[in-house]
Amino acid sequence: MRDVFNFSAGPAMLPEEVLLQAQAEMLNWNGTGMSIMELGHRGPEFQAVAEQAEADLREVMSIPKHYHVLFLAGGASTQFAMVPINLLGEKMTADYVDTGVWSKKAIDEARRYGAVNVVAHTEHHNHLAYIPPQERWTLNKNAAYVHYTPNETIDGIEFHWVPKTGHVPLVADMTSAILSRPIDVNDYGIIYAGAQKNIGQAGITVVIIREDLIRDPLPLTPTLYAYKTHAEHHSFYNTPPTYSWYIAGLVLAWLKREGGVTAIHERNKRKSEKIYSLLDGHKDFYLTRIDRECRSIMNVMFYIHDEKLTPHFLEEATNIGLTNLRGHRVSGGVRASIYNAMPDEGVDKLVAFMADFAKRNG
Amino acid sequence: MRDVFNFSAGPAMLPEEVLLQAQAEMLNWNGTGMSIMELGHRGPEFQAVAEQAEADLREVMSIPKHYHVLFLAGGASTQFAMVPINLLGEKMTADYVDTGVWSKKAIDEARRYGAVNVVAHTEHHNHLAYIPPQERWTLNKNAAYVHYTPNETIDGIEFHWVPKTGHVPLVADMTSAILSRPIDVNDYGIIYAGAQKNIGQAGITVVIIREDLIRDPLPLTPTLYAYKTHAEHHSFYNTPPTYSWYIAGLVLAWLKREGGVTAIHERNKRKSEKIYSLLDGHKDFYLTRIDRECRSIMNVMFYIHDEKLTPHFLEEATNIGLTNLRGHRVSGGVRASIYNAMPDEGVDKLVAFMADFAKRNG
Repeated sequence: MRDVFNFSAGPAMLPEEVLLQAQAEMLNWNGTGMSIMELGHRGPEFQAVAEQAEADLREVMSIPKHYHVLFLAGGASTQFAMVPINLLGEKMTADYVDTGVWSKKAIDEARRYGAVNVVAHTEHHNHLAYIPPQERWTLNKNAAYVHYTPNETIDGIEFHWVPKTGHVPLVADMTSAILSRPIDVNDYGIIYAGAQKNIGQAGITVVIIREDLIRDPLPLTPTLYAYKTHAEHHSFYNTPPTYSWYIAGLVLAWLKREGGVTAIHERNKRKSEKIYSLLDGHKDFYLTRIDRECRSIMNVMFYIHDEKLTPHFLEEATNIGLTNLRGHRVSGGVRASIYNAMPDEGVDKLVAFMADFAKRNG
Repeated sequence: MRDVFNFSAGPAMLPEEVLLQAQAEMLNWNGTGMSIMELGHRGPEFQAVAEQAEADLREVMSIPKHYHVLFLAGGASTQFAMVPINLLGEKMTADYVDTGVWSKKAIDEARRYGAVNVVAHTEHHNHLAYIPPQERWTLNKNAAYVHYTPNETIDGIEFHWVPKTGHVPLVADMTSAILSRPIDVNDYGIIYAGAQKNIGQAGITVVIIREDLIRDPLPLTPTLYAYKTHAEHHSFYNTPPTYSWYIAGLVLAWLKREGGVTAIHERNKRKSEKIYSLLDGHKDFYLTRIDRECRSIMNVMFYIHDEKLTPHFLEEATNIGLTNLRGHRVSGGVRASIYNAMPDEGVDKLVAFMADFAKRNG
C-alpha cells in the first residue's frame, strides 16, 4: 500500500494494481518483448487490447448494442464543440443546464454554432447551492438535444437524478461521474468523459453515442470532429492514443475485479459520507456551500470559516501524505477528489486529520 | 539489451533507457509517491516536466525564440485541418507537394477549406520513384503557404533538400522525419509531427510555429483547432496528454545524452546505408522502387522479386525477433522502419537475415 494519497481533481490517483501491472509489463507486454506503447495500433496485439477495453466498458456499464463506443484522442473539451457540430443539424438550437464552470465552458462553445437556451442553473437558499427540480426548467421541445453536467468537479455539485427529456436526446458530460455509480445508458443520447478521473490517464476521451445520433456534421467540420468518422472506423481512422487506451483497459479490468459499478458505488457513497459526516459534525469550523441533496460523491468541496487557516491546513495535510487538496483557483477552499481509485484508507486518514486540525485550531 | 527488434512504422520502438526510467518511476515519480500520470497538469511537478521537455526540444532543434512550441493532443492528422483553418486567411489558396499517402491525406483535408494547387508530385524513371526538383514546380506566389511531407513513411521516399518558398511560409509534416537529422527551423513557417516515431508515444503532436502565423482561424473553428488558443495558454488551455508529454521528455533527454540530432543523423545514415547496400548487392533477389536520391533514412521499403517468398520472409524474421516488417497494406512488400531508437544491433541482425534469406531462396 502506498503511503501518499493524492486528492487531485484530475489527472488523479489510479489503482495501485493498475500501476503495478503497467510497470511489470513496461518492457515486455504479453511476451512480445515490446512495450505496448511501441506496438503498431493496427497490429493484432493492440487490436486485442482495444477490443477488450471496449468489451469491458460495455459490460460494466451495460451499454446496449445500438450505442457506439468511441475512444478519441484529447480531453472532454473536444466534446464541447463536437456535440453541437454533430447534433445541431437543422434545428440549430439546444438546451443546456448550467451548474458550474464546466457547464459554462460547454455552453460558450455551443453558442458559437447555434442558439443555446439555458434551461436551468444552480440556485441558492440559505447560502447553499442546489440544482432546481426539472419541473422548473424551461425545456424546448424543438431542441436538438439537452446537455448537462451530472457532476461539476470544481464546485462539487452533483445530480442524484436523471433529467427526463422525452424524445429530445440527453447529452451528459460525465467526465467526473462515469463509472462512479450505476446508470441506465438508455436514458442518454450521448455520454462523454475525459479519462483522467475514473477511466485512466489524460489524453483519451470515451464517447458513448446512440447510433441514430451519428449524423452528418455541420459543413467544414474537421474530419476528426465528425462522430461519423470515428464510428465508421471504430476509433481507428488515425493512430489513437494507444497507451492511454491500454491504461483504460487495465482500470476497467480492475473495476470488474472490484465488483463493478454497483460495488464501487457503495464504496463511493461510504467514502464521501465519511467526509460529509465530519463536516456536518464540525459546522463551527468547516463550511460547505452545497445543499445536502446535491453533494458530490466524487469531489467533496469545503471551506474553513477562518480562511487564514486554509494554507496551514493544506501544508500540514501535504506533510502527512494527503496531497493536492487545494481547491480550484476559481473557488479556493479545500477539495477532496475521491474517485474510484481512492482507497478507504486515504479517506480515513483525511477525516482523522480534519478532526484533529479542527480540534487544534477551533 | 532486449532481444526483439521492432521495425514498426509507428507507434514504434523506444529507447530501452526511456522505458527503464518510465518503469522505475511508475509508482513514485521524483519522490512524490505518485505516478506522473496521476499528477495534476497544473501542479508544479508536471509543469516542470512540461517546461523541461520544451526546453530540450528547443535546444536539440535550435528553435529560435520567435517560434512557439505546442504540445497538442491527438495525432498529426489533426494538423491536416488545423493548417488550412489557421493559415488560409483571405488568400484561400495553398500549394501542396504530393509525394505519397500522407501528402494526399493532407491535400484532401485542405481542399475542404480552400483551393489547393498541387505544385509537384512523385514522378518515375526506370521504375524508380523520385521527387522532381523545385525548378519544375508550379509555385503560386499568392499561396497562403506551401505544404510538403519531408519523409513519406509508407513509400519510404524522403527529401534530402529543403524547398525554397521565399516569403510564402513552408509547412512540413515531419512526423517521421523530425529529430532524425539537423534542420534549420528558420526555413519553416510550421513544423508538425505526431510523436509516435522519434518523439515518444502516440497521443501527442508537436507543432513548431512562427509567431506571425498565429492568426485568427476561419469562422466557426472549434476552439481547440485554433493555434491561437494553444499559443496563448502554452498548451494548457485544457488538460494535455500528460504522460505522453512526459515520455517525450524522457526521449529528448536520451537524445541529448546520445549527442543530439547531429550525432543521431550520422547513426541514422549508417543504419540505413547498411540495408540499402545489402539491397544494392542483391538486385536479383530484392527490389527497391525509390530513386537513390530520395531514399528514406527512416523507412526502408523493399520487395522480393518472387512475391510468393514475402510471407516466408516475414514469418522467419518474426521468429528470430525481427518484428513488424510487413509493408503498409496499400504498398505490400517489406518495410524496415529504423527510427532513432532502433539500435545498430537490430539493423545488423536484419541485414544478416536478409543476406541469408536471399542465399537460401535465390
